[in-house]
Amino acid sequence: MYNFTNDYNETAHRDLLKAFSNTANQKLTGYGFDECCIKAKENIRKQLKSPSADIHFMSGGTITNLTAISHILKPYQAVIAADSGHVNVHETGAIEATGHKVLTVKTTDGKLTPELIEPILTFHCDEHMVQPKLVYISNTTELGTIYSKQELKKLYQFCQKNQLYLYLDGARLAMALAAKDNDLTFPDLAKYTDVFYIGGTKVGAFAGEALVFNDTTISQDFRFSMKQKGAILAKSWIVAVQINVLMQNNLYLELGLHSNNMAGKLKTIFENAGLTFAAKPQSNQLFVNFPNALAEKILNYYRVDKIGQTDSKYTCLRFCTSWATQDEEIKKFAKQFQKWIE
Amino acid sequence: MYNFTNDYNETAHRDLLKAFSNTANQKLTGYGFDECCIKAKENIRKQLKSPSADIHFMSGGTITNLTAISHILKPYQAVIAADSGHVNVHETGAIEATGHKVLTVKTTDGKLTPELIEPILTFHCDEHMVQPKLVYISNTTELGTIYSKQELKKLYQFCQKNQLYLYLDGARLAMALAAKDNDLTFPDLAKYTDVFYIGGTKVGAFAGEALVFNDTTISQDFRFSMKQKGAILAKSWIVAVQINVLMQNNLYLELGLHSNNMAGKLKTIFENAGLTFAAKPQSNQLFVNFPNALAEKILNYYRVDKIGQTDSKYTCLRFCTSWATQDEEIKKFAKQFQKWIE
Amino acid sequence: MYNFTNDYNETAHRDLLKAFSNTANQKLTGYGFDECCIKAKENIRKQLKSPSADIHFMSGGTITNLTAISHILKPYQAVIAADSGHVNVHETGAIEATGHKVLTVKTTDGKLTPELIEPILTFHCDEHMVQPKLVYISNTTELGTIYSKQELKKLYQFCQKNQLYLYLDGARLAMALAAKDNDLTFPDLAKYTDVFYIGGTKVGAFAGEALVFNDTTISQDFRFSMKQKGAILAKSWIVAVQINVLMQNNLYLELGLHSNNMAGKLKTIFENAGLTFAAKPQSNQLFVNFPNALAEKILNYYRVDKIGQTDSKYTCLRFCTSWATQDEEIKKFAKQFQKWIE
Amino acid sequence: MYNFTNDYNETAHRDLLKAFSNTANQKLTGYGFDECCIKAKENIRKQLKSPSADIHFMSGGTITNLTAISHILKPYQAVIAADSGHVNVHETGAIEATGHKVLTVKTTDGKLTPELIEPILTFHCDEHMVQPKLVYISNTTELGTIYSKQELKKLYQFCQKNQLYLYLDGARLAMALAAKDNDLTFPDLAKYTDVFYIGGTKVGAFAGEALVFNDTTISQDFRFSMKQKGAILAKSWIVAVQINVLMQNNLYLELGLHSNNMAGKLKTIFENAGLTFAAKPQSNQLFVNFPNALAEKILNYYRVDKIGQTDSKYTCLRFCTSWATQDEEIKKFAKQFQKWIE
Repeated sequence: MYNFTNDYNETAHRDLLKAFSNTANQKLTGYGFDECCIKAKENIRKQLKSPSADIHFMSGGTITNLTAISHILKPYQAVIAADSGHVNVHETGAIEATGHKVLTVKTTDGKLTPELIEPILTFHCDEHMVQPKLVYISNTTELGTIYSKQELKKLYQFCQKNQLYLYLDGARLAMALAAKDNDLTFPDLAKYTDVFYIGGTKVGAFAGEALVFNDTTISQDFRFSMKQKGAILAKSWIVAVQINVLMQNNLYLELGLHSNNMAGKLKTIFENAGLTFAAKPQSNQLFVNFPNALAEKILNYYRVDKIGQTDSKYTCLRFCTSWATQDEEIKKFAKQFQKWIE
Repeated sequence: MYNFTNDYNETAHRDLLKAFSNTANQKLTGYGFDECCIKAKENIRKQLKSPSADIHFMSGGTITNLTAISHILKPYQAVIAADSGHVNVHETGAIEATGHKVLTVKTTDGKLTPELIEPILTFHCDEHMVQPKLVYISNTTELGTIYSKQELKKLYQFCQKNQLYLYLDGARLAMALAAKDNDLTFPDLAKYTDVFYIGGTKVGAFAGEALVFNDTTISQDFRFSMKQKGAILAKSWIVAVQINVLMQNNLYLELGLHSNNMAGKLKTIFENAGLTFAAKPQSNQLFVNFPNALAEKILNYYRVDKIGQTDSKYTCLRFCTSWATQDEEIKKFAKQFQKWIE
Repeated sequence: MYNFTNDYNETAHRDLLKAFSNTANQKLTGYGFDECCIKAKENIRKQLKSPSADIHFMSGGTITNLTAISHILKPYQAVIAADSGHVNVHETGAIEATGHKVLTVKTTDGKLTPELIEPILTFHCDEHMVQPKLVYISNTTELGTIYSKQELKKLYQFCQKNQLYLYLDGARLAMALAAKDNDLTFPDLAKYTDVFYIGGTKVGAFAGEALVFNDTTISQDFRFSMKQKGAILAKSWIVAVQINVLMQNNLYLELGLHSNNMAGKLKTIFENAGLTFAAKPQSNQLFVNFPNALAEKILNYYRVDKIGQTDSKYTCLRFCTSWATQDEEIKKFAKQFQKWIE
Repeated sequence: MYNFTNDYNETAHRDLLKAFSNTANQKLTGYGFDECCIKAKENIRKQLKSPSADIHFMSGGTITNLTAISHILKPYQAVIAADSGHVNVHETGAIEATGHKVLTVKTTDGKLTPELIEPILTFHCDEHMVQPKLVYISNTTELGTIYSKQELKKLYQFCQKNQLYLYLDGARLAMALAAKDNDLTFPDLAKYTDVFYIGGTKVGAFAGEALVFNDTTISQDFRFSMKQKGAILAKSWIVAVQINVLMQNNLYLELGLHSNNMAGKLKTIFENAGLTFAAKPQSNQLFVNFPNALAEKILNYYRVDKIGQTDSKYTCLRFCTSWATQDEEIKKFAKQFQKWIE
């Protein structure tokens, strides 16, 4: 049975594994003070063209989000997110567990804009309500869509003007930056967000993300928060070496591109079959509306995520490809799919 | 300037003040173990026809909600509420500050039904999402509407079937039980909720509510939670004596009825003027749609809550009457209002 | 049976009751924006000679401590307290429930000094440990002892030098300021603490304390924290009018003095009987070491707190007098006691 | 410069690395539902002779402690620990950050006994204080000492009798079970604790611990807590494969034994030099009292932990060896040390 459920079903890309294995003969300092961490940070800062960025290596997305956000906010301050946002839906209330409300905005494409946020600011006008303080976005979004440079810049300027922090969840940042429609660069992320993370787990690492504070006034004492949340790995270098390889020779974007290209092939297949998408297909996730019977067939033979009913006749399924998806898998699926729709 | 902003702008009803003053000559045990508390609890249990109800005296609505709900839930469990619910909007994230997410449902009348809750249960199917566990309702609702006996019973049975707790916020319970359309009784509340509170602050008490656990399996050790949240008053009897008077000779319902009747007179005035309501007027809160210019005038001369724009031409204002509103106030307003609309 | 258990067993002093009753004919704005609150704050600021003090009316000691401390600290910061401190022992982990560790120091007299705190600062040197940030003291202390002006000043200067906040719990501040050995004044408290509260519940109020921020950089947005913790009373004036009366015509200190004097009479009785004290008797609490048999007798006839065994032969009991203790009660006890020890 | 600071300064044992690398060619299910996880759990259950044990793979010690303990306790319940306990000192208030107080007992050897715990239970008698509910111990302790079977059994029986849960932190469990004085086995841990973890990070794994619930009534819904705390690794198998290898062919105990043996050689060197130990040397950590000047010399040439002053003349240093410490390192140190003390 083939599998387009997710992009974290294979251990790690061979280049990362090799770099990881090479650490086996060294004696390294614990808790992130080793040479691998230092080197990886320098490399990231260079890519970001941001010599003062404050960088921390984390073991996964949820712990990165909750540790950073709870560090930044005061107890009565809240997060603004799309209602489809990962922190709102798929982290079992991790933000709330640290004491903070997540205020949500309905969106059709998973993206936030100043226009969508404005009413929340207007509404929350006194101390009987939480104080909105941090805008959470992800790129790619939960729906696989991406932010353009213009969109991100406008959002950041709006946040600046309204004393809001802008946090970008980069679990699938590689896919965003490698998307055909993308015009964002790493230095843009350093310029137009207060804090973001470079996701590794979904881009060829066996675990690990690099959290980057562009605004270092909010990262003071961050290691205290990390330790308190259980987010400092004793052997932090195991993440650092992986991120370091990803950030060399364009590998990060290459893996993102491969993920997108594999989805692109599926997209062509579905378009040729006259199917529509619940969200604009821009990266490695496709949200496809299938006639119910066809969806059934697919679910019987493939592991893909069932998102829900589009309407009474159509079912929405998510196809997710990865850095490790092989041409062969797409071809076999195409062949099978062709039979079903004939 | 007259004032229809709220129902907590006068200290206390004279009967409560008198009973309160009478405690001044006694020496009483601290922390809720005194005779006033014991007597008041007995009285409440009698009214509820529920000899085993576990009752606690609290100083206000928000601290009652947060202490009870955080006591009942496990860290990963969530509250379900109407999006207009007090715990969702007007308690500055008090529930989230204790670690729990509030899941919301859009409603037109502020009321929850099994049909509205069902999709939340279906959606929250695994450990990547919070576990819905407690349904929060208020009666009257934030929009002044009320639950019928049939509605509450159906909701409770649905909760029982789905292992959900049903919590009823009774900040304005007197107005609900005294409403013309009401068919609920105190014993019904004991039967068809797991926990609810009898609100005093908005019904003639200077402070205080009585929290009632019908399901005593969830109230075990509740005094630990009370102390931890700062909710045990050293002199708990100051609340108990007030609630006790309210629960005697039908005073609680009488004060609720008076509040409703005063609103009823305003309702007639507005209906005669051809105005519409944003929510069905059933109790002491009226949500009235005024032409923008008229709303302006009212806001200049009266203290009432501006809810927002109904549409481009109409503004929604809330009129709230209370146990202490006097006929004279209504008449003066009526006279003034008549001039404006002529 | 007579009762020296505590100083919160009678409703309220007659002057406070009278002022409270006088509010019954007014219509007042909710949530602390009424004229009574404004007037009481002005009065307090005048007594403190501190025109910029930021003052808030609270319903009790524990909720005051937890709301203020959790507002001031960042998630990884900790409180330093005497191991006998109220926040450490008798608030059911209220501080920890807001996420903060309480670091403790063993003391013989319940008082903190720079010398006692210094080792904690030295020890907590990196992010694997919490960051000590707020020093919690009470005056009088849990053991009934008091701080001299010199002691408080030194402690405050030490805190300033080490970027620590100094918080003073004034549940029994009246007794401290009225103690024979005292040389502190209200203006000293404004000068030598960052934040403190003027306790009412144990000094003739039926409920209520006035929280005073001297350092207003840490009180920004404090009303958000108050609302979130359920600490804003809808009818805040019920506290304000009481505190206002206490702060007029020296009543606060008079009630403190009366409490102390009553304890002073008990002290003489015990000294004459050759008994010793577990803590220096300076205010309205006496910690007396009784031979076990005598302690037994007392516990059979009086309600007093049993603190524990001083050693195998002696039992420590706490006698606590109050603003309402009457000469007659002392005399009757003296008579009975005399019989027992003859 | 040589290094006896810690036991987590090298990536991973070669057998674990090999097993890990072997996963690179598989497609595995995310979040702990893959075959590696299933197989590793079966293997652990077999070693524990406990077919019903509920096992979860975690990324590190602190996140294991905080996730498990916060899952088990109700909001007002507290942990009992030795004052030297890791959760009390070296986790930046992680337990308190989840809302729970840590009650501490002074010990000389880092070990808890019924006699030490009893007074805490007696003292915490009402709702003004937290409710002690979980006893936290570690084996080996923070001081490198170990629990005998008889000690653990007595402690567990005491906990059972007093409705306390017994939690054992096994960060260095291998060293405990491989200690010369040890008589505990894996099945004993299943019998005499409610929950414990098999530490990997300090025993040859690059990251990872296996948390074992023996009492499965307290592990219900544990994956919700894991997700909420950021403790579910997308690729959980990276921990599982390592733990699985450790639990095969006695490797876990072998690595523990090697760690202990290396420390044993240092112990002989120090004993021959007439030095004393601050805690009984039983495992891979030695707490040695050096004359101040000698301590200075060592600190200049070696990375070891300075614990503090034993007294004015002696300084306590911690030497920590590991599964990766080589004979050569010990020999070189011995040679150098010999020169210093001659």
